[in-house]
Amino acid sequence: MAGYIEPIEKLIRQFCKLPGVGAKTAQRYALTVLSMTEQEVNEFGRAIVLAKREVKVCSVCGNYTDVDPCHICAHRDNSIICVVQEAKDVLAVERLGEYKGVYHVLGGVLNPLKGVGRDQLRLGELFARLAGDVKEVILATDTSAEGEATATYIARFVKQYGIKVTRLAQGISIGSELQYADEVTLSRAFSNRKEM
Amino acid sequence: MAGYIEPIEKLIRQFCKLPGVGAKTAQRYALTVLSMTEQEVNEFGRAIVLAKREVKVCSVCGNYTDVDPCHICAHRDNSIICVVQEAKDVLAVERLGEYKGVYHVLGGVLNPLKGVGRDQLRLGELFARLAGDVKEVILATDTSAEGEATATYIARFVKQYGIKVTRLAQGISIGSELQYADEVTLSRAFSNRKEM
Repeated sequence: MAGYIEPIEKLIRQFCKLPGVGAKTAQRYALTVLSMTEQEVNEFGRAIVLAKREVKVCSVCGNYTDVDPCHICAHRDNSIICVVQEAKDVLAVERLGEYKGVYHVLGGVLNPLKGVGRDQLRLGELFARLAGDVKEVILATDTSAEGEATATYIARFVKQYGIKVTRLAQGISIGSELQYADEVTLSRAFSNRKEM
Repeated sequence: MAGYIEPIEKLIRQFCKLPGVGAKTAQRYALTVLSMTEQEVNEFGRAIVLAKREVKVCSVCGNYTDVDPCHICAHRDNSIICVVQEAKDVLAVERLGEYKGVYHVLGGVLNPLKGVGRDQLRLGELFARLAGDVKEVILATDTSAEGEATATYIARFVKQYGIKVTRLAQGISIGSELQYADEVTLSRAFSNRKEM
């Protein structure tokens, strides 16, 4: 998208760094910024810089926080650890309002093809936490092949400590029709069937 | 999307101001910003603030510029004025590399329902330019009802000065199939048919 003057082009290139944003969308965003008032634009710019500066990563669980350790690690039941891939997964579980334990954010899943090995994830930090008074580790990684493999890997390790390891139930989504369930999900739902 | 700490929520609210960005997308953008390096984030924030600060509006044509009058107004044929709705339309025409005249950015189209009247557009500025040595005014507003009405309004005014007024040709898009053309387009294509 050549043609705009340099400050606009620079801004378009910055917006292009956001996920799923191409040249056309970035251009729309940039022109929207130009149509804002100077005060609004300054607030926008400051929000970006401050978010990065003020947001820390909890040294215990790896979730985003403004204090260390985070509020969840400091005030909740430390004997149950729910292992998730990303910080946004913590929010998904928190929205339920049911879970009373703490979290551990891995920062991804094992994916050798993309060069993500054990050292790229916060696995060492997780295993170090097991030395404490942990009763259960809930594996809540995605049900993708990589998520499953990561869960299996962690489960094998955690069991050595004699700690209970659970995985979120897999089956047909509530409200969905049987005919639209994919084969793997349906097969999993059959093998995990429960007596009523 | 309650649940994140304040600096993240603030950033999410800012991204929500961009066109077509909802809470989920804004959250994705915010988490992407947090995963950038501090230097990248500072560049991003600065690009937003600087774009607003450095980009001016050309006092003649209304296009975005860093000098006033803009490069196009200063160096091109001032006797032909192409009237467009928005600054991004200038870029669309410029990409052709064929047009040698200058532009006039209206900043929208007449739309009484949305409270956009003559005074909200740069119409006075356009009519003031007609006093100069103008030979032709090309109306390149959108083919929406509002774009058409605005073009008709401008045409009526400009003709009083005895200046030639043209409108971009309307018809079937190149490469599209006749069966998919909507009725208005097809009807327009019939009435505008050319002898071969």
